[in-house]
Amino acid sequence: ASSGEVRRVTLIPGDGIGPEISDSVQKIFEAANAPIAWDPVDVTPVKGRDGIFRIPSRCIELMHQNKVGLKGPLETPIGKGHRSLNLAVRKEFDLYANVRPCRSLEGHKTLYDNVDVVTIRENTEGEYSGIEHEIVSGVVQSIKLITETASRNVASFAFEYARQNGRKCVTAVHKANIMRMSDGLFLSICREQAALYPDIKFKEAYLDTVCLNMVQDPGQYDVLVMPNLYGDILSDLCAGLVGGLGVTPSGNIGKGAAVFESVHGTAPDIAGQDKANPTALLLSAVMMLRYMNLPSHASRIEKAVFDAIADGRAKTGDLGGSGTCSSFTADVCARVKDLA
Amino acid sequence: ASSGEVRRVTLIPGDGIGPEISDSVQKIFEAANAPIAWDPVDVTPVKGRDGIFRIPSRCIELMHQNKVGLKGPLETPIGKGHRSLNLAVRKEFDLYANVRPCRSLEGHKTLYDNVDVVTIRENTEGEYSGIEHEIVSGVVQSIKLITETASRNVASFAFEYARQNGRKCVTAVHKANIMRMSDGLFLSICREQAALYPDIKFKEAYLDTVCLNMVQDPGQYDVLVMPNLYGDILSDLCAGLVGGLGVTPSGNIGKGAAVFESVHGTAPDIAGQDKANPTALLLSAVMMLRYMNLPSHASRIEKAVFDAIADGRAKTGDLGGSGTCSSFTADVCARVKDLA
Ligand SMILES: CC(C)[C@H](C(=O)O)[C@@H](O)C(=O)O
Ligand SMILES: CC(C)[C@H](C(=O)O)[C@@H](O)C(=O)O
Repeated sequence: ASSGEVRRVTLIPGDGIGPEISDSVQKIFEAANAPIAWDPVDVTPVKGRDGIFRIPSRCIELMHQNKVGLKGPLETPIGKGHRSLNLAVRKEFDLYANVRPCRSLEGHKTLYDNVDVVTIRENTEGEYSGIEHEIVSGVVQSIKLITETASRNVASFAFEYARQNGRKCVTAVHKANIMRMSDGLFLSICREQAALYPDIKFKEAYLDTVCLNMVQDPGQYDVLVMPNLYGDILSDLCAGLVGGLGVTPSGNIGKGAAVFESVHGTAPDIAGQDKANPTALLLSAVMMLRYMNLPSHASRIEKAVFDAIADGRAKTGDLGGSGTCSSFTADVCARVKDLA
Repeated sequence: ASSGEVRRVTLIPGDGIGPEISDSVQKIFEAANAPIAWDPVDVTPVKGRDGIFRIPSRCIELMHQNKVGLKGPLETPIGKGHRSLNLAVRKEFDLYANVRPCRSLEGHKTLYDNVDVVTIRENTEGEYSGIEHEIVSGVVQSIKLITETASRNVASFAFEYARQNGRKCVTAVHKANIMRMSDGLFLSICREQAALYPDIKFKEAYLDTVCLNMVQDPGQYDVLVMPNLYGDILSDLCAGLVGGLGVTPSGNIGKGAAVFESVHGTAPDIAGQDKANPTALLLSAVMMLRYMNLPSHASRIEKAVFDAIADGRAKTGDLGGSGTCSSFTADVCARVKDLA
């Protein structure tokens, strides 16, 4: 790629093991000659004149400029009133669709070997509205907010994603038997979108039923679309089927911007010890490359990561290997070069 | 047992396969000489003078009289405005705790062989409040209602259950990182109750994390207590680990009454064909016997059911066997008599 084509990406290395795994991604991207330049930035909240903590304006400016970000894990600040920074980033840029593919990995055996699902989660409202009241002492209500607009954004995203990724079926996951109006609205919008995609099969299923079926026969599912909290639950369940949050990527996508992130924790117990597994952030970066329309770089890096795990020699401790973050990174770099 | 000790139980056979599996339970109870007399009753809603459909008063009277019920699956009436009849029964008698034990069955292999968890679900409020509004066109809110009273009822039930059943640990499952006030209230009440049960270990965990860990290593969990919807999800997930809703029992317990029920569907496709598996209703009836302080009858029937499944000859089709509802029932009856 000529230097004229280099694209800038905002890099939020994050806390704990964040810097190590971000470093790994940068090295591997360099080895792969990916036409990406990084703008590293910190999101530790700064206190404004009004006393309220906010994401630093530098981060917000950079995101608006670059439109694409890669993010490691963030510590949620201790103390009341602090919302999760992970959520703040999703909300700030209206990243309405959270995409989490979960696929069985050849080199990492679990009880399941036929998982290949993508959960697509509404990412801005629902049970995450943040609206809560104490009506009288001992009686609290939380409001689940479902809008036609956000539902349509995520539903149309899901069908478009299915079409562009050669997926066959989208299942809308809901509890409209209980929340008839809110999940009912979500479901009706999914049906409306389904009608626009006759090439994609459409199904509807109760969340509880999906959980039950998923642990018995995950092969029956393909793309799943659902309100915020259901996506939180189901994406973790699916990640569990293939090895956990250390090996599953995530992308938060909006109209104007997208942030790809590993959704595991900051793992303070092993931070700085070269033990972290960079796979989740790497596969998130691969999703990012596809999003940026760099599919051949994406596929090359992805194959190198899968091959390194399948080979096993450089696998990190969490996957039962004896590799380190750097030895795994070096292994992937070598493979990426071989594949060039 | 002398006839003076016979206790009356309201029997709601239910729809679809309900009558067959209820019949199976009655036969097995007879073979076991269980000191139970049944009052069968229908819950098909009747239209009142005000035009509103309600559970028949005969059913309500009988429940109030007997205090204990056994219930097969119910069809939810078609058409707007009808709430699930299953829910109506739970609500009518304030059955605030829904208890669902899930244990790996020797005779029915799944991917997991070390499951032994009990989900205890708040059964009257939360996301099931039924309170929803359309604020403006295309904007809907559903209200999740958490009260100190209902939270304390279910939390104290969970610890008491753990103590009386020789369980070691209760985990409160929540998303108080997101719903700080509502799940926060639930969690604080669980902590308060935990302090009253120093003999029971207490843990707290996020729902998403529990789902992830549950599919990787269910052996780490024991008793789990949680708000309504989370229990709906997690109980189905756990049922999936051990073979599904056809083999897992459920009990809805309140201060004045209790209803034990199989939570699988009515299976209209096989109704009346002698193909249904009565196990879920049978194990629910076993829970009922323990609740009624008839532990030796409970254990005898339970062992007979487990042995019949382990032996396999009379297993029904859903478990991969070639037995029928009646041949399985006859097998269990014979075993129950042998164990006498
Ligand atoms: C960290 C937490 C706020 C977050 C969520 O609940 O969405 C996490 O579980 C996730 O799935 O990204
Ligand atoms: C039938 C349905 C209303 C019910 C629920 O959502 O509670 C069911 O899933 C259950 O778990 O008993």
